[in-house]
Amino acid sequence: MADLAYTIPGLGTDDSLRLVESLQDRLHAMNDLHLTLKHAHWNVTGPRFIAVHEMLDPEVAEVRGFADDLAERIAQLGASPVGTPGRLVAERSWSDYTTGKADTQEHLKALDEVYTGIISSNRKAITLAGELDPMTEDILVEQTRGLEKFQWFIRAHLEGSEA
Amino acid sequence: MADLAYTIPGLGTDDSLRLVESLQDRLHAMNDLHLTLKHAHWNVTGPRFIAVHEMLDPEVAEVRGFADDLAERIAQLGASPVGTPGRLVAERSWSDYTTGKADTQEHLKALDEVYTGIISSNRKAITLAGELDPMTEDILVEQTRGLEKFQWFIRAHLEGSEA
Amino acid sequence: MADLAYTIPGLGTDDSLRLVESLQDRLHAMNDLHLTLKHAHWNVTGPRFIAVHEMLDPEVAEVRGFADDLAERIAQLGASPVGTPGRLVAERSWSDYTTGKADTQEHLKALDEVYTGIISSNRKAITLAGELDPMTEDILVEQTRGLEKFQWFIRAHLEGSEA
Amino acid sequence: MADLAYTIPGLGTDDSLRLVESLQDRLHAMNDLHLTLKHAHWNVTGPRFIAVHEMLDPEVAEVRGFADDLAERIAQLGASPVGTPGRLVAERSWSDYTTGKADTQEHLKALDEVYTGIISSNRKAITLAGELDPMTEDILVEQTRGLEKFQWFIRAHLEGSEA
Amino acid sequence: MADLAYTIPGLGTDDSLRLVESLQDRLHAMNDLHLTLKHAHWNVTGPRFIAVHEMLDPEVAEVRGFADDLAERIAQLGASPVGTPGRLVAERSWSDYTTGKADTQEHLKALDEVYTGIISSNRKAITLAGELDPMTEDILVEQTRGLEKFQWFIRAHLEGSEA
Amino acid sequence: MADLAYTIPGLGTDDSLRLVESLQDRLHAMNDLHLTLKHAHWNVTGPRFIAVHEMLDPEVAEVRGFADDLAERIAQLGASPVGTPGRLVAERSWSDYTTGKADTQEHLKALDEVYTGIISSNRKAITLAGELDPMTEDILVEQTRGLEKFQWFIRAHLEGSEA
Amino acid sequence: MADLAYTIPGLGTDDSLRLVESLQDRLHAMNDLHLTLKHAHWNVTGPRFIAVHEMLDPEVAEVRGFADDLAERIAQLGASPVGTPGRLVAERSWSDYTTGKADTQEHLKALDEVYTGIISSNRKAITLAGELDPMTEDILVEQTRGLEKFQWFIRAHLEGSEA
Amino acid sequence: MADLAYTIPGLGTDDSLRLVESLQDRLHAMNDLHLTLKHAHWNVTGPRFIAVHEMLDPEVAEVRGFADDLAERIAQLGASPVGTPGRLVAERSWSDYTTGKADTQEHLKALDEVYTGIISSNRKAITLAGELDPMTEDILVEQTRGLEKFQWFIRAHLEGSEA
Amino acid sequence: MADLAYTIPGLGTDDSLRLVESLQDRLHAMNDLHLTLKHAHWNVTGPRFIAVHEMLDPEVAEVRGFADDLAERIAQLGASPVGTPGRLVAERSWSDYTTGKADTQEHLKALDEVYTGIISSNRKAITLAGELDPMTEDILVEQTRGLEKFQWFIRAHLEGSEA
Amino acid sequence: MADLAYTIPGLGTDDSLRLVESLQDRLHAMNDLHLTLKHAHWNVTGPRFIAVHEMLDPEVAEVRGFADDLAERIAQLGASPVGTPGRLVAERSWSDYTTGKADTQEHLKALDEVYTGIISSNRKAITLAGELDPMTEDILVEQTRGLEKFQWFIRAHLEGSEA
Amino acid sequence: MADLAYTIPGLGTDDSLRLVESLQDRLHAMNDLHLTLKHAHWNVTGPRFIAVHEMLDPEVAEVRGFADDLAERIAQLGASPVGTPGRLVAERSWSDYTTGKADTQEHLKALDEVYTGIISSNRKAITLAGELDPMTEDILVEQTRGLEKFQWFIRAHLEGSEA
Amino acid sequence: MADLAYTIPGLGTDDSLRLVESLQDRLHAMNDLHLTLKHAHWNVTGPRFIAVHEMLDPEVAEVRGFADDLAERIAQLGASPVGTPGRLVAERSWSDYTTGKADTQEHLKALDEVYTGIISSNRKAITLAGELDPMTEDILVEQTRGLEKFQWFIRAHLEGSEA
Repeated sequence: MADLAYTIPGLGTDDSLRLVESLQDRLHAMNDLHLTLKHAHWNVTGPRFIAVHEMLDPEVAEVRGFADDLAERIAQLGASPVGTPGRLVAERSWSDYTTGKADTQEHLKALDEVYTGIISSNRKAITLAGELDPMTEDILVEQTRGLEKFQWFIRAHLEGSEA
Repeated sequence: MADLAYTIPGLGTDDSLRLVESLQDRLHAMNDLHLTLKHAHWNVTGPRFIAVHEMLDPEVAEVRGFADDLAERIAQLGASPVGTPGRLVAERSWSDYTTGKADTQEHLKALDEVYTGIISSNRKAITLAGELDPMTEDILVEQTRGLEKFQWFIRAHLEGSEA
Repeated sequence: MADLAYTIPGLGTDDSLRLVESLQDRLHAMNDLHLTLKHAHWNVTGPRFIAVHEMLDPEVAEVRGFADDLAERIAQLGASPVGTPGRLVAERSWSDYTTGKADTQEHLKALDEVYTGIISSNRKAITLAGELDPMTEDILVEQTRGLEKFQWFIRAHLEGSEA
Repeated sequence: MADLAYTIPGLGTDDSLRLVESLQDRLHAMNDLHLTLKHAHWNVTGPRFIAVHEMLDPEVAEVRGFADDLAERIAQLGASPVGTPGRLVAERSWSDYTTGKADTQEHLKALDEVYTGIISSNRKAITLAGELDPMTEDILVEQTRGLEKFQWFIRAHLEGSEA
Repeated sequence: MADLAYTIPGLGTDDSLRLVESLQDRLHAMNDLHLTLKHAHWNVTGPRFIAVHEMLDPEVAEVRGFADDLAERIAQLGASPVGTPGRLVAERSWSDYTTGKADTQEHLKALDEVYTGIISSNRKAITLAGELDPMTEDILVEQTRGLEKFQWFIRAHLEGSEA
Repeated sequence: MADLAYTIPGLGTDDSLRLVESLQDRLHAMNDLHLTLKHAHWNVTGPRFIAVHEMLDPEVAEVRGFADDLAERIAQLGASPVGTPGRLVAERSWSDYTTGKADTQEHLKALDEVYTGIISSNRKAITLAGELDPMTEDILVEQTRGLEKFQWFIRAHLEGSEA
Repeated sequence: MADLAYTIPGLGTDDSLRLVESLQDRLHAMNDLHLTLKHAHWNVTGPRFIAVHEMLDPEVAEVRGFADDLAERIAQLGASPVGTPGRLVAERSWSDYTTGKADTQEHLKALDEVYTGIISSNRKAITLAGELDPMTEDILVEQTRGLEKFQWFIRAHLEGSEA
Repeated sequence: MADLAYTIPGLGTDDSLRLVESLQDRLHAMNDLHLTLKHAHWNVTGPRFIAVHEMLDPEVAEVRGFADDLAERIAQLGASPVGTPGRLVAERSWSDYTTGKADTQEHLKALDEVYTGIISSNRKAITLAGELDPMTEDILVEQTRGLEKFQWFIRAHLEGSEA
Repeated sequence: MADLAYTIPGLGTDDSLRLVESLQDRLHAMNDLHLTLKHAHWNVTGPRFIAVHEMLDPEVAEVRGFADDLAERIAQLGASPVGTPGRLVAERSWSDYTTGKADTQEHLKALDEVYTGIISSNRKAITLAGELDPMTEDILVEQTRGLEKFQWFIRAHLEGSEA
Repeated sequence: MADLAYTIPGLGTDDSLRLVESLQDRLHAMNDLHLTLKHAHWNVTGPRFIAVHEMLDPEVAEVRGFADDLAERIAQLGASPVGTPGRLVAERSWSDYTTGKADTQEHLKALDEVYTGIISSNRKAITLAGELDPMTEDILVEQTRGLEKFQWFIRAHLEGSEA
Repeated sequence: MADLAYTIPGLGTDDSLRLVESLQDRLHAMNDLHLTLKHAHWNVTGPRFIAVHEMLDPEVAEVRGFADDLAERIAQLGASPVGTPGRLVAERSWSDYTTGKADTQEHLKALDEVYTGIISSNRKAITLAGELDPMTEDILVEQTRGLEKFQWFIRAHLEGSEA
Repeated sequence: MADLAYTIPGLGTDDSLRLVESLQDRLHAMNDLHLTLKHAHWNVTGPRFIAVHEMLDPEVAEVRGFADDLAERIAQLGASPVGTPGRLVAERSWSDYTTGKADTQEHLKALDEVYTGIISSNRKAITLAGELDPMTEDILVEQTRGLEKFQWFIRAHLEGSEA
């Protein structure tokens, strides 16, 4: 991530490097998230299986699109986006999702925590981007809107969740 | 992967466990592959950028579908498919793709090697499945046909490749 | 609107409650607006009937989508969005639209005033959201862009409007 | 609703006025219903959230179409259909829906009662229209078929509903 | 129209012949109407040209569909539907539409009269069919609903039509 | 078919039970018919094979839709619709279709008789429903219109059918 | 057809009037033809019913499009296109189609003669337009191509037509 | 099923007859299954109604397609496929599905048993076809893959199914 | 425009150069026209705003397609098509469109004059192409047909245009 | 066909060359077949023209797809697929189709023989591929399934074919 | 090609025979061309593989459509179009395409020559048709436009083609 | 640009005028850009022709949409957007694009410079809008995101661009 081949007209190199660092972290988060959501999609069980199984797939597709936009923003800033699993695992600051085959509600509880972590980090990235580059900020705001909506889907299942 | 909740009618538990082990290895391979193809999609450069950039995306989509079918076959066999990046990196027998930003031809050469490894392993998995379960065999044959076609796309770029 | 079951990670409860109050007011405005636009759609008459009758329907659909996004934002903030007509009428700060069957130009004049009120209020809500939450701000900016475009459609009919 | 500009060829003015009165009441009912269904769509919670949340949206769309057909039938009869929320609340003979954020089953129980009221009134309107105008009767029969099908969806959730 | 090759199970021959006679008259009316609407589509002029020109085409398509359903109902009743222009002109009880190139409002006034005639006749045909055959009645009710809606489109242009 | 869990608002239990009995008989008829049409689709031969083979498939799809609407109407009336083949064969009042591989015209002659029986029974069911419930009547009229149209397709092949 | 409000830039008034006269004759021919094709569509019988019944409908749609293009070309030339059935019958130089319910082959023979007449006349109109206006010529060539293709469909049925 | 009019080039008559017998049994199974799945689709109740009701319909469509492919394979082998309900009931070796209106979980348990039976029989048919004809084997493998996937959907609902 | 890299087989270089010159002039005209139509699309006002605003957009799209076909024909003839605004303004023989914000009728009058100029020039280009190359002629005839149709749309608004 | 640039991982060169030889023969057969089917599509006549004319086109499209898959499999095996007509005619082991303009039944009889030859050869190719490469075998099985289905379409026309 | 069963109304037999001879030659050319383009599609290699591989497929589809239109024009003229490969090779006046596996540029150079030959011949056919039949001329002009556009695609790759 | 007929509610006239001036400059830039991109689309040559030729078209479409949104924002602010080529050339601060027919890489280098200029100016416009109006800012941010992505497409071709 040292040198930049070029950067976006009107942005300085140092600012670009700070943005790249922040975006690469978000790219790892999104790659981790869509793998995790698919893992949950395959491992949920119980009488509400089909509803939750099907709810997860459009979110997987959306998060894959988020990863794509983040990676291409890194490339626009002149750097090389990293998307391989080895680098992801080596560079991430969080642990692997550990729930295997389990009831839908158990997975939703675990995913709720995943989303809390990701959204908190996204909001910090927005603050940084807001100081440096309105286009990057706009990308992050758009993605965070999507993530916050999906966390509500998850949380709505958990409210009054005795059944 | 120890116990199975159930397995497919007409299949024994031991055979099912052998199939699950083989399929889980292929699932890791497919998850690794679609991440790697996206990584290449973002990092290719040079005068043939757009053609190769666009050629990779439908293959990403196809390989993601392969991962889905493998994981759901594992679940049908009564086991829990594993799709998280930590487990993938811990359990795989190959290394991370290491090419960063580079000319399209350089990436295609590196991907050609990736495909050679994956196809060889898939053919071994087909032999095993052919002994135990025609439905699993059919899934693997279908996926291998797709992978062999895409490797030809890659190789066709490399023939007489002086330009 | 007293207690919140939860709120979005990174947002405080007080800020969330201030956002909910503002968003609920906008939700009432949007529900009122799509009902009013449909009412006008049914009651316009005169030689330009079909053009204006058909112009209103896509705007109804867009405003219904705005209401949906506002309500789901309130839910994401942990509160309960209110969408029933009794509560709308009891809590709104403006009066019912009063034009019945009338010429297209008369309805467009009345609707121009409706939009002036709504846009002014939306801009105040944007200022508040801009201080508290960039995602809510982005939703309101997006909706206000749409409303300002449609008001221009209305006003363009009224310029030099002697015919 | 006093004078009619014209009415449908072959229908008398008095019969038209009786039809208009009945249809306006049904129009208020349909406007109330689609607002109420959206309100429930936003406020349902619990482990069956996503299934019920998604089941309500096509019904909202269908009921909005019913309101459109009723209002345009009133206009065909030469009268002015009323679709504003103030008039709806002032003229309706039923109360606002009062359930806020609540479990899916609780909302479905409340909506079952709403449908019982609406369907009973629709059947009375069909009897009246059957005496005066086969086209109006056909519109109401078509809409009642749709409402009765959706009430069955609701009721099927409530049978043996201990979970 | 003398003999019937067969008729619909459960219908008598005499009733079938009465229905055929009534439906053939309506078939001539629909063939005349879609030709007339196309004629108006080509001949409207004036500052509201495009709006009215485009409004007429979907109605042409709908009326052509009405003719198709009427003709095929005649065939189901065992008779031969007649759709040629010579027979239409020889057997109709109304005159040719006489407006040539003219302002949109002038055409709409002339078409309003055309619709008044057609709708009155359709309602008489419904009364007859209501006594003999509920399926034929249903076809005619469905078509009359469509015609009455389009007449309202026309009339809405003519209300307060000083411009 | 003894007790009803509930019935449609505005309908009495006895009337509902009479409707259920009649609709269950029609449901058996429609399930029998779509199986029979598929059977014919597979067994027609001769120089007009492809035209008749293809004509039958959309009718199969339509009749399957009729069965669905009838069964869901029974459920709306609070009863349990029966769709299994054993119950169908035990409860029907007609015999199995007996034509195997045969020329298209031979199948069309046999199907013409099948349709004559079904349409006659449908018309009786319409009479009953006309006394009890306009929504059920409307469903049956709609389906009978479709069946009578398809019988005409069949009969049109048989007129002057020497070739 | 006396005066022209305007004509196409670059065309003289006399030439325009000659074109209008020729095009109006073709417009009558196309209106007659699509009515006649529909008449045949409803009246064909015999063991090849469905194949011929379905073959005619796309041709009806194409010929209706031809009428539209001819009429709008007349309007472009500043004249008023005439599309009413009374004027068509009064001004045409050919007789009504006289075949009623009849075997497909009998209708195809009769339609073959209709097409021979229309194509011969179209070719004369092309010669005239070729002298005066390449755009009108192009419209007529395009339509004649379509008519000649469909006549081949008809004729192919009649070759070696002993069955 | 005695004589074959012809058989597929390269296949002997005796082998063809053995395949026909096996395929006819599978055809009865698929016709029984899609009727049974529809029956369940109409009779499920309880708080998870909508999710299971909607899950069954695509499976009905898929199984209907399986029946079609089996029947047409029988015809390709020169025999006459049998699809009527009387023959199905007379020739099947299993009993009618007996669950009426019942909770979703109860139906899923009953359907799980149905699938276990069908899949076991399909696997035996695959063994036979594998010895005689690779194309028939491929059809059966493809269908069994689909059935095994759907049984997993059912079973996933039943795991840890205390709710 | 001096030398040609190649030209179309069968065409001489001199003829090609004459065609290129004529086509480049038409390319400038089409680029000017679609910019002008968009300018009018944005600047029309008055009570018929929406109808005219929407009528212009499909014409913009069509004229952009005309520019594309002309430019690619120039390239096929071995020359370099020029599409930049500086060259367009420097090389055109007509003036900029000067109407700003104005009533729809005022813009339509101004556009009518624009079309008269373009169509006259197109007809001269057709004459030239008719002598040299039937394919180029065909392109120009096709485009002129479209332009003449749209001028009629404009003129139809201006006939009897007192309102 | 001498040397291979490369071959599929896991396959030996000799096996690859044997597969290429067999696949090239099938490629010639498919290219011949789709040309022959189009030839028949153009040359069928008689009263069943349209049904058979239209039946052939989807089969042409399917066979073209078969040729594509075979050729690309040859390329994957490292060889050069040959698709030119001169090589096809020089290397094929069968004669040109000789039926010109003729009745549909006559063409279907001739095509039945063509299919018998092709299917027999395909089955031999499947046996070879089954020993060497499951992916090639799967391609051939898939294509043979399609060809056997279409031969049944042909044969179904010829059974009891006196008309 | 001796006798004609009939010919197009208004065309003489001798003229028809001259057109048939010319069109049959073009039909052979188009059949040869689409086979050759597919051959190139499979055999191109080198670093620009995917772009050229994909560019060829839509052209294959277009040329197949040209062959269809030419063959059906021959049939309309009463003759029998010949589309088999043996007749094509025996009757063509050019040689087989000889490039096997080769770099994209090498294929494009070879195809450029193929197009030069075909376009020159098409232009001669246009001259002949222009004297005899405007509809045939129009078909050939339309196809030649398409071929000339695609030759430009090829040539644009070869300009300045050092890479 | 002197007076404003009205402006957006909540915006002052002076601020509106400053926004209009800035937006009009961007509108000229976007009109210039889409013309220039089309010019390049037609003039690129060399062995990578088709890939770059096709890459430019979606960007043309996107930039045309940007121009539309900017112009309509100017109109919403009460001013008259200017879109004619004469005004564009007279008012722009940059020169015409001067590359004619040239290799793809040469055009991409020239376009890279064009984008650098446009993006720098857009970022200044964003700063201004950020002070005055969040809706205008949002439009500009959205468009700049698109332009920056496309510049990356261009630049990716130029990295390591020796071929």
